Amino acid sequence: MADAVSSLLQRGVSDIFPNNADSQQEDDNLAHRLENADQPLRIKLGIDPTGTDLHLGHSLPIRKLRAFQDLGHKAVLIIGDFTARVGDPTGKSEVRRQLTEAEVQHNIQTYLDQIKPILDFETPDRLEVRYNSEWLSKIDLAKTLELLTTMTVGQMLAKEGFAERYQQGTPVYLHEFLYPLLQGYDSVAVEADVELGGTDQKFNIAIGRDLQRHFGLRPQFGLLTPILLGTDGVQKMSKSLNNYVGLAEDAVSMYSKLEKTPDALLPEYFEHLTNLSLKDLPENPREQQKLLAHTVVSQYHSVAIANETQQSLAAMVTQGDMSQTDVIPEYSLAEVTFPAKLFYLLSASGLCSSSSDARRQIKGGAVKLDGTKITVVDQTYDQPDDLIGAVLQVGKKKFIRFIA
Amino acid sequence: MADAVSSLLQRGVSDIFPNNADSQQEDDNLAHRLENADQPLRIKLGIDPTGTDLHLGHSLPIRKLRAFQDLGHKAVLIIGDFTARVGDPTGKSEVRRQLTEAEVQHNIQTYLDQIKPILDFETPDRLEVRYNSEWLSKIDLAKTLELLTTMTVGQMLAKEGFAERYQQGTPVYLHEFLYPLLQGYDSVAVEADVELGGTDQKFNIAIGRDLQRHFGLRPQFGLLTPILLGTDGVQKMSKSLNNYVGLAEDAVSMYSKLEKTPDALLPEYFEHLTNLSLKDLPENPREQQKLLAHTVVSQYHSVAIANETQQSLAAMVTQGDMSQTDVIPEYSLAEVTFPAKLFYLLSASGLCSSSSDARRQIKGGAVKLDGTKITVVDQTYDQPDDLIGAVLQVGKKKFIRFIA
Repeated sequence: MADAVSSLLQRGVSDIFPNNADSQQEDDNLAHRLENADQPLRIKLGIDPTGTDLHLGHSLPIRKLRAFQDLGHKAVLIIGDFTARVGDPTGKSEVRRQLTEAEVQHNIQTYLDQIKPILDFETPDRLEVRYNSEWLSKIDLAKTLELLTTMTVGQMLAKEGFAERYQQGTPVYLHEFLYPLLQGYDSVAVEADVELGGTDQKFNIAIGRDLQRHFGLRPQFGLLTPILLGTDGVQKMSKSLNNYVGLAEDAVSMYSKLEKTPDALLPEYFEHLTNLSLKDLPENPREQQKLLAHTVVSQYHSVAIANETQQSLAAMVTQGDMSQTDVIPEYSLAEVTFPAKLFYLLSASGLCSSSSDARRQIKGGAVKLDGTKITVVDQTYDQPDDLIGAVLQVGKKKFIRFIA
Repeated sequence: MADAVSSLLQRGVSDIFPNNADSQQEDDNLAHRLENADQPLRIKLGIDPTGTDLHLGHSLPIRKLRAFQDLGHKAVLIIGDFTARVGDPTGKSEVRRQLTEAEVQHNIQTYLDQIKPILDFETPDRLEVRYNSEWLSKIDLAKTLELLTTMTVGQMLAKEGFAERYQQGTPVYLHEFLYPLLQGYDSVAVEADVELGGTDQKFNIAIGRDLQRHFGLRPQFGLLTPILLGTDGVQKMSKSLNNYVGLAEDAVSMYSKLEKTPDALLPEYFEHLTNLSLKDLPENPREQQKLLAHTVVSQYHSVAIANETQQSLAAMVTQGDMSQTDVIPEYSLAEVTFPAKLFYLLSASGLCSSSSDARRQIKGGAVKLDGTKITVVDQTYDQPDDLIGAVLQVGKKKFIRFIA
């Protein structure tokens, strides 16, 4: 038990607070609390459905949540359907656009689909999915005022990001000040014992502790996971930087991206994206890349699909269809005029011999974009951003990846 | 009509905004709007029942509201039963204590009683009394967030008082940022055409304009009245500075304070506290003092009581019971040990011949403090502040005023 707890609290963990390792107090020593818990702890993770795509960078706290489940604790997954409409200002250099209710509802299902492969949705009593509109939509002005009385402007402006924006004259809107308090109030509502989040969530999670104390509850622990670097090994993983691997990506795209993981990034990716023992990895970096790609594809698709993908990509390479360094050839959209028809792209990129061949292939169901079959012959894309990073496929063996 | 409007917008007015006198646009020329109104305008004045006592300084915007009524417009008096619990941070050097609902309910009636002599409560359709809990208690979090999105932290910190406190490190609590928006939202709720307030209310009234615009309404005008100097002629009238005349003070106390109005202060007091023509005042300052005192007492009590008070105080003076400069003798509390019994004070101050005489007078109903009969023989005061400035009276002719 102690070994499992120790691994839980060390692998892929940036920070735990409070964290007084010498203390025998269950209120400031999480290891002690876990080892002595006579009932499952409630482990909170909040996710705001602000977009449609999650990537491996988002998976770290979700994977940690799964690890708590595996030790018998209860995952309390909070879908921030209310807070998504406000927008977490953390790490933002300007105010976020507020989402409509329809956008949020659309995002929720895509998020749950993407999270499914990581969490244990099956074992009874290991998962509680809650929507924070359940309590936040009922908050009246008096309660809001009570939340606001707990903090000063100075404390809020001390939050990373706010101070910089305020000093630079970039507007910080008043509703952004409310966000951390709402996230904190979620911890009150679900009576969280531990809250998970990226390192950028420390401020918000600490507010949860304050509010729990304010409302007479025992304050939660914060457990922070690192911010994952992107596949470029330089900047944090991000869709806008196009250095990401999406959780919903098709197996081929996912495998081929991870198979190119820079050597320096391999230890980190193994630690954070797999459960493999870090001592027993193959010595050859090329073997490590394949193992990493296979393991991750196995998680998000299946072992069978990972095997098949590995084999078919290897076959392409030996057939000489693609260079060895770039498993999937890239196709630049720089010269393409938008809006662009799919059949034109198929023809221009050489995946089909002509536009009419391309139309036939679409009709015949042989064309996929990021693994999704496209059968609309007139399918049109408005702008390069709709395609950059995506893999276009005809039949089983012809692929290109769009680049800018 | 034009003359009446001109007097309305000039006498006792510090600022009107917007105020483009040359404009023929009804949206930025209040005189033009008033002269061309085909229905009564809605004139808003908000009062938070945060205490029990109003004084003449508070009466300026209320008197201006009455002037609008007299020209046929509708006074919309907003009792801030909700906002009183938040507390207007305007002019405060630190966060205000939040009031309980019971305290607020108690204050409302005392406020209405004090306002009654000023406003026209009788003429049909000239007065609408609203409580802002009517709409504010129904505001949910989504609406609160909408209000908050309309302003930035920078705009809010530009408010007089906030910036100083923030820079000096005196806490500004987040709920204080909400106050101006709630006051502004009142203007939305009642669809105010004009909002009245002291000059310190300019920021809050301007937010009302912004919010009305945000919610698709025509923005109100702001009409600001000056901050009245206290009877010392030096600092603004304030209960804590003991340079005030309370609206609920008994006639003797009110008359005797105003009869001592410093010469330099007389023109201001006549302008703001009476409707007398400023051109037709008596030349002799002593006569002006008596006229002022008589006029104000007539408003808050009655002409008959003003006459009687003037006569009885004059009689005391001629009987030589009091010096001519101090109509009511002062009694210093510096040597008194607190808590202090009322009967001791009656005896020590010479109003009664002994403590037992004092007890008899109390029992007999002859003792009043600031006009309120006191019949509790053991009545005790905890501290000098409970008495300083108050007038203690035995029978009809014996008075003292407590000083520090």
